[in-house]
Amino acid sequence: MAVCEILSVGTEILLGDILNTNSRYLSVELAKIGISVLRHTTVGDNAERLAAALTTALERSDIVIATGGLGPTADDITREVCCEVMGFGIVLDREIAEGIRKFFEGRGLPMPENNLRQAYVPVGGTVFRNNNGTAPGIGLKKNGKCVVILPGPPYEMAPMYHESVVPYLTEYSDGIIVSKTVRTMCIGESAMAEKVADLLEGENPTVAPYAKKGEALLRVTAKAQTEAEALALLEPVIVDIRERLGDVVYGIDSESIEQRVVELLKEKKMTLATAESCTAGYIPKRITDIAGASQVFGYGAITYSNDVKEKVLGVKHETLVAYGAVSEQTAREMAAGIRRVSGADIGISVTGIAGPGSDGTNKPVGLCYIALDAPDEQICEKIETGRNDREYNRYVNASRALNLVRRYLEKKGG
Amino acid sequence: MAVCEILSVGTEILLGDILNTNSRYLSVELAKIGISVLRHTTVGDNAERLAAALTTALERSDIVIATGGLGPTADDITREVCCEVMGFGIVLDREIAEGIRKFFEGRGLPMPENNLRQAYVPVGGTVFRNNNGTAPGIGLKKNGKCVVILPGPPYEMAPMYHESVVPYLTEYSDGIIVSKTVRTMCIGESAMAEKVADLLEGENPTVAPYAKKGEALLRVTAKAQTEAEALALLEPVIVDIRERLGDVVYGIDSESIEQRVVELLKEKKMTLATAESCTAGYIPKRITDIAGASQVFGYGAITYSNDVKEKVLGVKHETLVAYGAVSEQTAREMAAGIRRVSGADIGISVTGIAGPGSDGTNKPVGLCYIALDAPDEQICEKIETGRNDREYNRYVNASRALNLVRRYLEKKGG
Repeated sequence: MAVCEILSVGTEILLGDILNTNSRYLSVELAKIGISVLRHTTVGDNAERLAAALTTALERSDIVIATGGLGPTADDITREVCCEVMGFGIVLDREIAEGIRKFFEGRGLPMPENNLRQAYVPVGGTVFRNNNGTAPGIGLKKNGKCVVILPGPPYEMAPMYHESVVPYLTEYSDGIIVSKTVRTMCIGESAMAEKVADLLEGENPTVAPYAKKGEALLRVTAKAQTEAEALALLEPVIVDIRERLGDVVYGIDSESIEQRVVELLKEKKMTLATAESCTAGYIPKRITDIAGASQVFGYGAITYSNDVKEKVLGVKHETLVAYGAVSEQTAREMAAGIRRVSGADIGISVTGIAGPGSDGTNKPVGLCYIALDAPDEQICEKIETGRNDREYNRYVNASRALNLVRRYLEKKGG
Repeated sequence: MAVCEILSVGTEILLGDILNTNSRYLSVELAKIGISVLRHTTVGDNAERLAAALTTALERSDIVIATGGLGPTADDITREVCCEVMGFGIVLDREIAEGIRKFFEGRGLPMPENNLRQAYVPVGGTVFRNNNGTAPGIGLKKNGKCVVILPGPPYEMAPMYHESVVPYLTEYSDGIIVSKTVRTMCIGESAMAEKVADLLEGENPTVAPYAKKGEALLRVTAKAQTEAEALALLEPVIVDIRERLGDVVYGIDSESIEQRVVELLKEKKMTLATAESCTAGYIPKRITDIAGASQVFGYGAITYSNDVKEKVLGVKHETLVAYGAVSEQTAREMAAGIRRVSGADIGISVTGIAGPGSDGTNKPVGLCYIALDAPDEQICEKIETGRNDREYNRYVNASRALNLVRRYLEKKGG
């Protein structure tokens, strides 16, 4: 298996001004094409230290991927240093220079002369086009060693990696690794793991459980020579897991609960309205993170005060007095109220105590009621996270409310 | 100035399973005590590669801080390898062993025998107590070189760093470095930099501009022997910057715009209500991230559809027909409407096109109107981010709306 090191270049990382997310991103992606990452190194914008780091990395590894330091200013030295260490000369590429000029023209900005430094390319090397910025990437291969240089900004680096670097590294790739993640809610990580205990022993695919902000996940990973073969290995295991876990599974892979809810609402041609107390905007914010949500979502009310719960949603004063704002009764009246005033098909509500303080009653921080109101069904669930973590409680309560909608819609015939 | 390297140990980092936040944290903190970080290195849980990395790091640097690999399982080898490279023997510390036993007893759990590995300490080394877990940290000093070993979990590592490592490194500390960040909105980074051009040449404090999601920031950094001296150097420069930049400055240091708005509302004993279209919950979500926001915020309406804008906020049908939902007229009527129906002192509104698609008119993605309505003032601002980035546009529009409130409240006497 080919061995790779990732070399990040940038004084801003060593000062802690920015977090090094590129190394992680590349590690995950390289594993998928069967390339082992054995070391991450970060050095500053210093030619001597960069040259030393690259030289020792090449002694140990087949591939070095360097990121950062391709910018137009004097402290951006990665291109020059790497080409020198690998023994490649550099020349001005007229086409790239023209492209950079046009990039600035298109934005109506003057081009600082410095930017032309980005148009220098290695003689005999490979140039990777940058579709999201001005600095092209570079590939250098010599004597069985390979150096890849990518721009530092993640939104330039990541697309370039997929478009150009993956094909460039084909000869080093040892088969392909494909993962899918089964996402669940309303089940603990260990309870989930028990139901698939035998699958956790599997070797290809492997199945690994982990937990994440109110969700329990199973990562299923297969290795094969082609993506199609890997997917063929994954498929039956995913089906098996889905069957065993039942309706706690809300999605596969990176699909979020809000994505799933918007899809289902579109599919069933139904609309949703929200009434929130403690989550206060978190649910509509997440729903409208999904482009096109306006087809299924028109109105959300944040009724933070009791007064507004009465006035806007028609929650009965007596309910609030008798049971308090954080109660099943209030949650149900909020959901019914928002459905009535919005005219939407489904109303959902959240009322809880996110922390750090309680609400003046003896109710515990982390307690929350979520309710769904539809013509054919009314549901209310009580959630107790047991945590005093405002952001966690708000996020998880919003997720669980969305999950109520997901379960309601999935049960409904099409 | 003493030179330091940070050595992270953990295969999970090389696989990309976790993001290396410890290196960044330590870089920021070490800079504060005048220790330069010249390299970050990550290796897996492999004795040979760890020993090699530590040995070369010690050739170049005065201090190496290693994190991770102090756990109880067989692949946790950092303690043993570091002690061996530095030439320290290890022995079982009965007191620590007893502490670990009690840690498990207190939680009603059986103690796996493996956990006793964490009770081995270097003969002649320093042991750092772990108040948040079982693995103690270790300090080794020999021949002018220093190795510090800390547990990997950030919530164990960070407190141990402050409690034990900062005093342990006193002899290497070259004074103290203190930074403050001046945060602004509604001014570009270069326009801001021009107004403080002469200050950017300063050596102590240094002043450096940077940009972040719709904000322009100035980081002011002073170096001195004590924190009080450093603050005394910073103070007049911050005052000077504030004067030059005027009311685009919304805060100093990590204070967010939502934090500032909630503080000001409390101070002025006023309440706020929100009416949102494109930001759809983002503003109330951010306001209620601040604990205690319920004193100043009671009602937010997310009026995503035109219909709801009319019904809930009383926006005139003719306004929507004549000018469209994304217009100054609609924004102003939304702000006035939410103030009227909520009874709050201030109403704010946002209506815009977040992307990726436009709204069926010829209006550009990134266009947004924000309005404020108060008894003594009505303001509307037009924003054009020029970007097709849904999350960016929504975040920046929400920030700018909050900033309208901040400016209104700061101008107000009392």
